Amino acid sequence: MHLVRTVSVCLAVALVSAGVLASAPAADGRYEPTWESLDSRPLPKWYDDAKVGIFIHWGVYAVPSYGSEWFWINWQGSKTEEYVQFMRNNYKPGFTYQDFASDFTAELFNATEWADLFARSGARYVVLTSKHHEGYTLWPSTHTFGWNAVDVGPHRDIVGELAGAVRATGQLTFGVYYSLFEWFNRLYTADKLHAFMRRDYVDGKVWPELQELINTYRPEVLWSDGDWEAPDGYWRAKEFFAWLYNDSPVRDTIVTNDRWGMGTLCLHGDFHTCSDRYNPGVLQKHKWENAMTIDRKSWGHRLNARLEDFVTTDELIGEIATTVSCGGNILINVGPTKAGTIEPIFAERLVEMGRWLKVNGDAIYKTQPWQYQNDTLTGSVWYTSAKGSSVRDNNFRTVFAIVLDYPYKTNSVRLGAFSNQVTKIVQITMLGFNTALKWKPTDDGILVEFPQKNEIDRLKLHHAWTLKITLSSRWPLRA
Amino acid sequence: MHLVRTVSVCLAVALVSAGVLASAPAADGRYEPTWESLDSRPLPKWYDDAKVGIFIHWGVYAVPSYGSEWFWINWQGSKTEEYVQFMRNNYKPGFTYQDFASDFTAELFNATEWADLFARSGARYVVLTSKHHEGYTLWPSTHTFGWNAVDVGPHRDIVGELAGAVRATGQLTFGVYYSLFEWFNRLYTADKLHAFMRRDYVDGKVWPELQELINTYRPEVLWSDGDWEAPDGYWRAKEFFAWLYNDSPVRDTIVTNDRWGMGTLCLHGDFHTCSDRYNPGVLQKHKWENAMTIDRKSWGHRLNARLEDFVTTDELIGEIATTVSCGGNILINVGPTKAGTIEPIFAERLVEMGRWLKVNGDAIYKTQPWQYQNDTLTGSVWYTSAKGSSVRDNNFRTVFAIVLDYPYKTNSVRLGAFSNQVTKIVQITMLGFNTALKWKPTDDGILVEFPQKNEIDRLKLHHAWTLKITLSSRWPLRA
Amino acid sequence: MHLVRTVSVCLAVALVSAGVLASAPAADGRYEPTWESLDSRPLPKWYDDAKVGIFIHWGVYAVPSYGSEWFWINWQGSKTEEYVQFMRNNYKPGFTYQDFASDFTAELFNATEWADLFARSGARYVVLTSKHHEGYTLWPSTHTFGWNAVDVGPHRDIVGELAGAVRATGQLTFGVYYSLFEWFNRLYTADKLHAFMRRDYVDGKVWPELQELINTYRPEVLWSDGDWEAPDGYWRAKEFFAWLYNDSPVRDTIVTNDRWGMGTLCLHGDFHTCSDRYNPGVLQKHKWENAMTIDRKSWGHRLNARLEDFVTTDELIGEIATTVSCGGNILINVGPTKAGTIEPIFAERLVEMGRWLKVNGDAIYKTQPWQYQNDTLTGSVWYTSAKGSSVRDNNFRTVFAIVLDYPYKTNSVRLGAFSNQVTKIVQITMLGFNTALKWKPTDDGILVEFPQKNEIDRLKLHHAWTLKITLSSRWPLRA
Amino acid sequence: MHLVRTVSVCLAVALVSAGVLASAPAADGRYEPTWESLDSRPLPKWYDDAKVGIFIHWGVYAVPSYGSEWFWINWQGSKTEEYVQFMRNNYKPGFTYQDFASDFTAELFNATEWADLFARSGARYVVLTSKHHEGYTLWPSTHTFGWNAVDVGPHRDIVGELAGAVRATGQLTFGVYYSLFEWFNRLYTADKLHAFMRRDYVDGKVWPELQELINTYRPEVLWSDGDWEAPDGYWRAKEFFAWLYNDSPVRDTIVTNDRWGMGTLCLHGDFHTCSDRYNPGVLQKHKWENAMTIDRKSWGHRLNARLEDFVTTDELIGEIATTVSCGGNILINVGPTKAGTIEPIFAERLVEMGRWLKVNGDAIYKTQPWQYQNDTLTGSVWYTSAKGSSVRDNNFRTVFAIVLDYPYKTNSVRLGAFSNQVTKIVQITMLGFNTALKWKPTDDGILVEFPQKNEIDRLKLHHAWTLKITLSSRWPLRA
Repeated sequence: MHLVRTVSVCLAVALVSAGVLASAPAADGRYEPTWESLDSRPLPKWYDDAKVGIFIHWGVYAVPSYGSEWFWINWQGSKTEEYVQFMRNNYKPGFTYQDFASDFTAELFNATEWADLFARSGARYVVLTSKHHEGYTLWPSTHTFGWNAVDVGPHRDIVGELAGAVRATGQLTFGVYYSLFEWFNRLYTADKLHAFMRRDYVDGKVWPELQELINTYRPEVLWSDGDWEAPDGYWRAKEFFAWLYNDSPVRDTIVTNDRWGMGTLCLHGDFHTCSDRYNPGVLQKHKWENAMTIDRKSWGHRLNARLEDFVTTDELIGEIATTVSCGGNILINVGPTKAGTIEPIFAERLVEMGRWLKVNGDAIYKTQPWQYQNDTLTGSVWYTSAKGSSVRDNNFRTVFAIVLDYPYKTNSVRLGAFSNQVTKIVQITMLGFNTALKWKPTDDGILVEFPQKNEIDRLKLHHAWTLKITLSSRWPLRA
Repeated sequence: MHLVRTVSVCLAVALVSAGVLASAPAADGRYEPTWESLDSRPLPKWYDDAKVGIFIHWGVYAVPSYGSEWFWINWQGSKTEEYVQFMRNNYKPGFTYQDFASDFTAELFNATEWADLFARSGARYVVLTSKHHEGYTLWPSTHTFGWNAVDVGPHRDIVGELAGAVRATGQLTFGVYYSLFEWFNRLYTADKLHAFMRRDYVDGKVWPELQELINTYRPEVLWSDGDWEAPDGYWRAKEFFAWLYNDSPVRDTIVTNDRWGMGTLCLHGDFHTCSDRYNPGVLQKHKWENAMTIDRKSWGHRLNARLEDFVTTDELIGEIATTVSCGGNILINVGPTKAGTIEPIFAERLVEMGRWLKVNGDAIYKTQPWQYQNDTLTGSVWYTSAKGSSVRDNNFRTVFAIVLDYPYKTNSVRLGAFSNQVTKIVQITMLGFNTALKWKPTDDGILVEFPQKNEIDRLKLHHAWTLKITLSSRWPLRA
Repeated sequence: MHLVRTVSVCLAVALVSAGVLASAPAADGRYEPTWESLDSRPLPKWYDDAKVGIFIHWGVYAVPSYGSEWFWINWQGSKTEEYVQFMRNNYKPGFTYQDFASDFTAELFNATEWADLFARSGARYVVLTSKHHEGYTLWPSTHTFGWNAVDVGPHRDIVGELAGAVRATGQLTFGVYYSLFEWFNRLYTADKLHAFMRRDYVDGKVWPELQELINTYRPEVLWSDGDWEAPDGYWRAKEFFAWLYNDSPVRDTIVTNDRWGMGTLCLHGDFHTCSDRYNPGVLQKHKWENAMTIDRKSWGHRLNARLEDFVTTDELIGEIATTVSCGGNILINVGPTKAGTIEPIFAERLVEMGRWLKVNGDAIYKTQPWQYQNDTLTGSVWYTSAKGSSVRDNNFRTVFAIVLDYPYKTNSVRLGAFSNQVTKIVQITMLGFNTALKWKPTDDGILVEFPQKNEIDRLKLHHAWTLKITLSSRWPLRA
Repeated sequence: MHLVRTVSVCLAVALVSAGVLASAPAADGRYEPTWESLDSRPLPKWYDDAKVGIFIHWGVYAVPSYGSEWFWINWQGSKTEEYVQFMRNNYKPGFTYQDFASDFTAELFNATEWADLFARSGARYVVLTSKHHEGYTLWPSTHTFGWNAVDVGPHRDIVGELAGAVRATGQLTFGVYYSLFEWFNRLYTADKLHAFMRRDYVDGKVWPELQELINTYRPEVLWSDGDWEAPDGYWRAKEFFAWLYNDSPVRDTIVTNDRWGMGTLCLHGDFHTCSDRYNPGVLQKHKWENAMTIDRKSWGHRLNARLEDFVTTDELIGEIATTVSCGGNILINVGPTKAGTIEPIFAERLVEMGRWLKVNGDAIYKTQPWQYQNDTLTGSVWYTSAKGSSVRDNNFRTVFAIVLDYPYKTNSVRLGAFSNQVTKIVQITMLGFNTALKWKPTDDGILVEFPQKNEIDRLKLHHAWTLKITLSSRWPLRA
């Protein structure tokens, strides 16, 4: 049960108004390279409105397509037997990870088809791995000669093609993931050997490459990763943020995350990711993001995934609801094949999600967390509220109750969150259903009667059912 | 509407009793190489009982994995621009189809995993393409040197491995598909050039290869194909049938189809296939099979399949119901990847089908067609009847009405097929639901009331709903 | 020392006149399938005149290019550690020999360049391995689907291209090598398992393939090999000879060798090969051929050849002289690379041989063995005689004494072969040198004084020096 | 005719004594980064003594092995039709140069075998392309991730292996070639676009990489190249020389050349190369090197080389003689195959050269240029003089006259260079021949009579013949 206590409510307020209340940047309107100054930057509105993004992990690991995108380090770093065996059985002795690259053919890659699928999924932004821990860049990086998607493999500028197609949909914002470290880059490992007291890798590779990436493709999400072995000072994170916020061509709109060296995770950055598949289940003080995968066990494509490894559409929609209710965005990952296709199982999930969002999008996009995140009586009901009508609004406001588990036995649902404000309820409807629902007060809240299930099914309402509860004005003042 | 008129009923009777009534083989118990004698062979019972099989199209075409398993002929036979272009863009000049073979790696092929999935799907038999029109054999054929799965590609005896695993499930029978012709085999094309007046290819290749295949692996289905360019005399089909029925090690159990040269299709063989995806919708005189594909547009794997190309589980189960109602078996095709995996989208369909068959299997396996195939009032209701209780049985008998379209509006279904025998109805239940359903006679039949849909959902009854109608004895005599 | 005694002289006579004296074929002018009849066929004149041929071993073994053209059997037959290790180190597990084929690219193969080089070498015929023991055919054999140079690898008809280019030189005759057996052909190994009591491989593969080869390309040498495991009856050798001599399109000109099954080697066929690199050093009764290699240790190309493995030009010319002196032809083998080039080291030998033959060709082409093969006093001097002037000729005749070792110490050479016929010597010259040499009788023969070595060098006479000795008529009668 | 006039003689003197006479480095014994100071460094003696080195061009260009090591730029820079066509015909569309790397297998590379061959050739040092213009490094460079011989291709440290093997011979010194620029490195092309006003490539790549190379492998030759597009200031050449001469671990022994940016060629550096295949034919003021190729048209291996493209051993030895006579060293290039072998044609040249040097080495190693470079009467005679006995030596001194063209007509040679000092001649011998030669004064010099050619040949003296002329002391003072 995830009731938000008073203190949480206050925090929610803080979150929403952070941009207004926080101390402004330096007098000249520029941010200084201190966390205090950098953390004061208001979150660009587009990002909080968007809620749902698509994450794409695509790289040379799609060639062995085995285990996960951590193939290289599992094989040659930790020397995990399963991976060592896979290579021993299927490749010639001495075969290196880099040798995979020429088989990263991408012959069926069509950026427009991808973008159309993502648009159809209802997502509002797309984040592509411009470079993962392997170091291979999906654009022709000036600093990664011979180990990028133009020089070997697809022979195409993947970042550029996808950026164009994503923006052409008119619905989606484009962003990039970038791994700070590279497992086997000798510049990095040499710095590491020197306890990060020298910075050849950062100065000669990371900074110029990140700036090239941002100047060239103008992404509006910069999803940093691979930071954790070194302090943020090594990466010169604060200085980079200052450049990003003050001088980069996307200074007004870009958002970045919290993975910028030891001591930054869950603490700094426009949005916090805290951990992979982070979904705390309670309201967070700061904007956050749940980066999760449709294939539960891997971010990159893997041929050895089994049907059971894929989240169901029900689970995926549940994940959206719980995430957005607690103030998060969700970044849903797909791993394309080396040929450049997105397997039908991923497409199926995305298309079904898109159908659901088409009906239930009002409960997701541009919403705010409500006073409660999930219900006190029926825990599988999660709340959001209409963003336009703020907590202190004098008029009507809307609360969305997303019912994840259908009440098969009773065909009705008990909601405790309204126990103190039953009288404020103006109307209850179900999104996608055109007549108001019957409901009645109970001892501990209200009981909402669902339409007949055959009626619901006839309207093709599946996976989760959103009750839209309209409240009359001013009640919070009286509460 | 597919009411079976009197004549059809008689034919249905003929079908069921064919094995008993037909003229026996020659005095010595051997079949003669005449269609009259060969057609007199009773259908081995296991096949009619099985109803549902899995078809597997796997070969070198899984390497380009583009378009369909007819890749080679589309590219180099008809020179279809799309295929020519695909090769021009992605392969070096002069690249041949045979050059694909070394990339048919099958590194993740695990016959036991496949067999387990097929068992889980509820299927009762499996048919593998031992050789498709490309001529590449999945076993180390003595007559196909250097162009088989042991010599190039997987370096494994695929037929042998799968036969073993399939049989080890204890549930599945093993069969093979074999293409008589090979598009580009110079022996065949030379025979063809001579208007099939000579038979070098048949004598030197087809006969010895088929005999090796059957003697070695003892398949219980021989699914012939690629016969249509030549008369059955060219293939020496009757002689081969005679060997198969009289002398082969599987003479008691094997079934073969009707694709054995011009003039055999839909006419001879243990079961008729008539056309690909054959599903006539009316009762057939002779045992038949509906060979269809989960990917609507291809039998082999293709990377360029789109989500929309896959049949839904609803459609798949509809196909099963309509096929079995009309006396057919269904052979459901999957196309594995070159790596040896079955994509999750296929697995999902098969697993969902398996769940449905677990509940509804009584309406499928070992059933017989009923007097009616689909209902006269509600055409999307399809009938089967319990095989144990024959048409002339003096006791109870069971009719299964498979409701493909849920009656969302009324939550009840009208059945016209029982208009003349309402009084014989003993009880109506729904498979998977433990209490009897309410029903009542109407002017033109009966009206069966469904349980509440939320109740049905709670029991996870999806896709199609089977009404089991128990009739009292002897009514047909009075009809 | 290789003095030919009286008996040898008689045999030499027999050799020369064999075509005339031998019993003719059957009354209808056709040969019967008996060795007696077949052996009676006269040797086509072109072959005995030609003396020098080029042998080409080219096949899939040029891809690993390691060890020799017996790579496959050494690796997977005898499992020789060196080969097993080579594969283990450099290829992925399970890699098969057939997998090499797609890397047999032949991208630089230019038949005309090859033919020009062979013409420049002074050779008069060329024999190409149309199929070696691996079974891979260099033409699109109807009976070797997917394992020939059109289907995989070069994607070209190598036999056809080379035949055309060789004939276009106007100097060279074209021939083919064909291996009867194929190490790993399952048809053959099955026959072998049945102690060659059945003949599926011969009837289904060898005969039709050989006939296709001869009918299509009309080679004038058929160099059979790979016969030794089976009796000639298995191969139906006599029947094949009869077809070749009576009905094939090259019946008037073709020559074939003696490798047609146990009991044929060194006994039947137009020319005998007896063993690889056969060079007996004494006159042979029957026409024979010395098939030898420039790379001493391999017929096929191998990257691991060392400089020391190549015969020097001196050695090569010595081999020609000794071979021709004893009645043989020489077939000099080169092994092209997988790219289709002939390495410069081979070219160098061939070009130097060509320069020598340009000056000394009169002592080789169209010559006959002489009374003596090498000299009785100076064993490294080898004799031939001008073919036009026969042993019983009444006019002048010419004897060529090829001096293989230069007489550095004395600058003169003693010849014992003329001890009984000094008075018949009309003149002695050196080929390439325009003035007559001084000579004088000695106790045991003659002493021929060489020109000053600096003079010889100035005329670029290298490797071996031919003395042309003109004898007056009728002396043999007096001998 | 290349008579050295008085002024030249003086320069020759200067050359020899440069180390002694030149102004010393700065007071602290360190060189300053000025050409004046750097040019004052004495040439390490080992290099001038060595005379003959082996150059090895090995890199990814050995994979296409077509045209030359400039394959990439010819194909994609100048887009030369022949190369464009080669790629179009033999590779798939979009194939990049980097895609070649995984086929650079080097499976037969054995550094010890190479080193043994080089030792056998009589060479005294070896220079390997550690990185050519393609940018691919033959060692695991920290600054060239994914584009070096450990990461892709051989998976071995070629520089390290060869350095070890070369040194293990006890005869050979190890050196490296390093291309400053890289045609397609985006860091370099960006600097170039900025007219070399910025130096990202030099600072981030060239300097650290060169230092790593020298610190790790301690080469004693650093053969720079690829400098010509930029001024030496861009490369920071003087600063690098200063590091090399003052602080590098090979500061006492290393020699470097003159290719360090515009304005350095033929002007600065320990030895001058001036142009490829530089062989001026007259004495040079400064130590120089003739870098030439056995394959006249390419430095890298190419399969399309023809026999005529290879220099003969006569030509090669002529090149050595003319080069050394004029004060140069010769660096003889071989291009190994992608498999790691050195083709026999190269080996043959090297082995024959080694045989010649074994006999004639006294006339080459450790010699000095003489007063004359080639003879005034017989221009194809080239002189060297024994290094041990200097120009001002008071005792005997030795002059070597290397006769390149054998005097076939007269068997004697006229030498004009001794016209003024006939009386000083003590003795004349031929290297390899153990008795003194007859000679006599003539009007314009001397006439030396050669031994009989058959005698010379018996001793296996080929290619060029060295007369060793011992002069009595003090004559130059009197001259």
